[in-house]
Amino acid sequence: MSKETKTKTHADKVKDKAFKKLVALGKDVYGQLEEGKYPDFEMPLRASSNIFYDLKTRQYSVGEKRVRRSAGNVRHLKPFLQTMFVASFAARDLLQPGRTSTLRDLYYSSESAMAKMFNDQSESDNVITDVEAIIGMAREDFNIFPDARSTIFGDLVVSFQDKKTKQKRELNLTFNPDGQTIGPTLVKSDFVKTGADKVICVESGGMFQRLIEEDADEQFNAILVHLAGQAPRGTRRLIRRMNQELKLPVYAFVDADPWGMHIYNVIASGSASAAHLTGLTTPDAIWMGLTPTDITTYDLPTDNFTKGDLNRTVQLIRDPRYQKPYLQEELKVFMQLKKKAEQQSLTSKSLTFVVDEYLPAKFKEIEKMQRDGKI
Amino acid sequence: MSKETKTKTHADKVKDKAFKKLVALGKDVYGQLEEGKYPDFEMPLRASSNIFYDLKTRQYSVGEKRVRRSAGNVRHLKPFLQTMFVASFAARDLLQPGRTSTLRDLYYSSESAMAKMFNDQSESDNVITDVEAIIGMAREDFNIFPDARSTIFGDLVVSFQDKKTKQKRELNLTFNPDGQTIGPTLVKSDFVKTGADKVICVESGGMFQRLIEEDADEQFNAILVHLAGQAPRGTRRLIRRMNQELKLPVYAFVDADPWGMHIYNVIASGSASAAHLTGLTTPDAIWMGLTPTDITTYDLPTDNFTKGDLNRTVQLIRDPRYQKPYLQEELKVFMQLKKKAEQQSLTSKSLTFVVDEYLPAKFKEIEKMQRDGKI
Repeated sequence: MSKETKTKTHADKVKDKAFKKLVALGKDVYGQLEEGKYPDFEMPLRASSNIFYDLKTRQYSVGEKRVRRSAGNVRHLKPFLQTMFVASFAARDLLQPGRTSTLRDLYYSSESAMAKMFNDQSESDNVITDVEAIIGMAREDFNIFPDARSTIFGDLVVSFQDKKTKQKRELNLTFNPDGQTIGPTLVKSDFVKTGADKVICVESGGMFQRLIEEDADEQFNAILVHLAGQAPRGTRRLIRRMNQELKLPVYAFVDADPWGMHIYNVIASGSASAAHLTGLTTPDAIWMGLTPTDITTYDLPTDNFTKGDLNRTVQLIRDPRYQKPYLQEELKVFMQLKKKAEQQSLTSKSLTFVVDEYLPAKFKEIEKMQRDGKI
Repeated sequence: MSKETKTKTHADKVKDKAFKKLVALGKDVYGQLEEGKYPDFEMPLRASSNIFYDLKTRQYSVGEKRVRRSAGNVRHLKPFLQTMFVASFAARDLLQPGRTSTLRDLYYSSESAMAKMFNDQSESDNVITDVEAIIGMAREDFNIFPDARSTIFGDLVVSFQDKKTKQKRELNLTFNPDGQTIGPTLVKSDFVKTGADKVICVESGGMFQRLIEEDADEQFNAILVHLAGQAPRGTRRLIRRMNQELKLPVYAFVDADPWGMHIYNVIASGSASAAHLTGLTTPDAIWMGLTPTDITTYDLPTDNFTKGDLNRTVQLIRDPRYQKPYLQEELKVFMQLKKKAEQQSLTSKSLTFVVDEYLPAKFKEIEKMQRDGKI
């Protein structure tokens, strides 16, 4: 390893890798053109017929089937051009000058100078996903980010290049009591040190703020992550990095309904729409609840299951990502109870019940289930 | 002014004032009980018949009409009890121990120990608004916050009490390139110093990130605020404080459609649902556009007006908050053009067009309109 490589940040390395892969794609196409061929490229098939739960990586993955797009096929010509546009935009307009863009920016950028490249944003979003599949890296790696943001608070010091001074600087994630925004900078930052021994991911902003206020980060020695519903991909990547690089166990604290359980499971096992990517999942993440059993144990305020809730629960029981005993057991309790509760319903006991009673009891329960092999 | 008062933070003073008003409300009710009366209290009528555009404060305001709620009237008994519950919860469970709560937390808290106090959250939200109207202070002043968050970035140093050390600490709002979350702490922080000479409020997250990335804060000497659509009340309060305390002019940079214009106007003139409150509006805030004229000038990608867009534009033309010449002129352009565009459509020129061309031209245009008395 050269000296230069040693001093490169995590962000620099990812960027270099994505840039090389995009340039290689372009060079390959140019090479074919010089040989007098109609250029083509290959990518994994992203259709549901080629998506499965991979027992080895323990995540939703794409299978072996691949598709080829050729400039010599009139039906492929449009997606071929669109793919080249996105790859070139990512390499030349984003990675090289060090800019980022949102999905929407890219859609609008395609209208500059030349003819309209995409009919609507769903078309450009889809081609961006194709480019991910081709180079096997996430769009965030080539500087395309979603708008969605979530927040983090806890004893973790990260470092990144200061925007103004261009020097590396450190940021302690307890600095702002309202939490730090998880944006492009934080997701790609380097981890300097942490005193925490776990990560707790929280579905709702109200509960996140409650936990900060009650010093749950200190009491449970935890880094707190606000998911804001289904976690944005950048947040899922940061969670995985804390699990892999810092060896911190990850817990997901969500509403007691099948949708909350699925917020957990996308963190753990991924989603069909990102099955072509690695680096986003945390297979060992643990679902804390609220469980339907918690609803009964603590006599929490509930709402009745809708038909949609019931159908979703039936789906999850069959889903390969939900085969662990503790998940199956609780899905069955949902089927019997036919009731759901929000995590904030714990407030009905008292504002501090969640830290005084619920979480301490829950961590003991999880330890026992781990000893019993249910998790 | 005593020494103690001098060293109190902005946050402390607001909290003290709200606490005193809530306690006074309770004492008044107890006093009436001791006199052997059925207790009652008075509040401004919040119905639309009593809401008008106040030319003096230049905001939507409640009028002179007041309502009285008496515990001696069976029809008032339920709201009377609910109001006392919220006032007591705010004073005793939030302000006194220094806790905050979300609207949802308060709803759930009402189910603890005693009987169910509210049928649903809309009922408790409504009573919280009543308490605001009674004491003439916003729910944030008695520590009830919404979930919604927006973000800020720019050369402003604020100070607040550190959560861990309990010492005052300073935070420069350029610290995190992803922006700082505008949560309870930031909204109530003290302003230490700023090198900026204006505030630019931005509707979309994509444009906010673009402006940070292109160093718009330095180029335009501006503090950037991400509104995330309709600005949360805490954000509106912070914008007003920057305008009043730091004497910074405020610009709103929004999508070119009647909904974007209204995001601007709620910042400037307030909304019917908060007409009973002061301290949230910035009457001198300026709408930057995108204007419908910009759409034509820069030949931007557009969408056609829907029937809803058209109806909304007709409403705004008649709205007393839209009577300034430059607003009326552009509303009429909307009626002719019948097209709308997002602020991110500027990206169709280039990623840097907004800072290289659009904003410099816009600031000149605004100066001219100010000289011509159109703003």
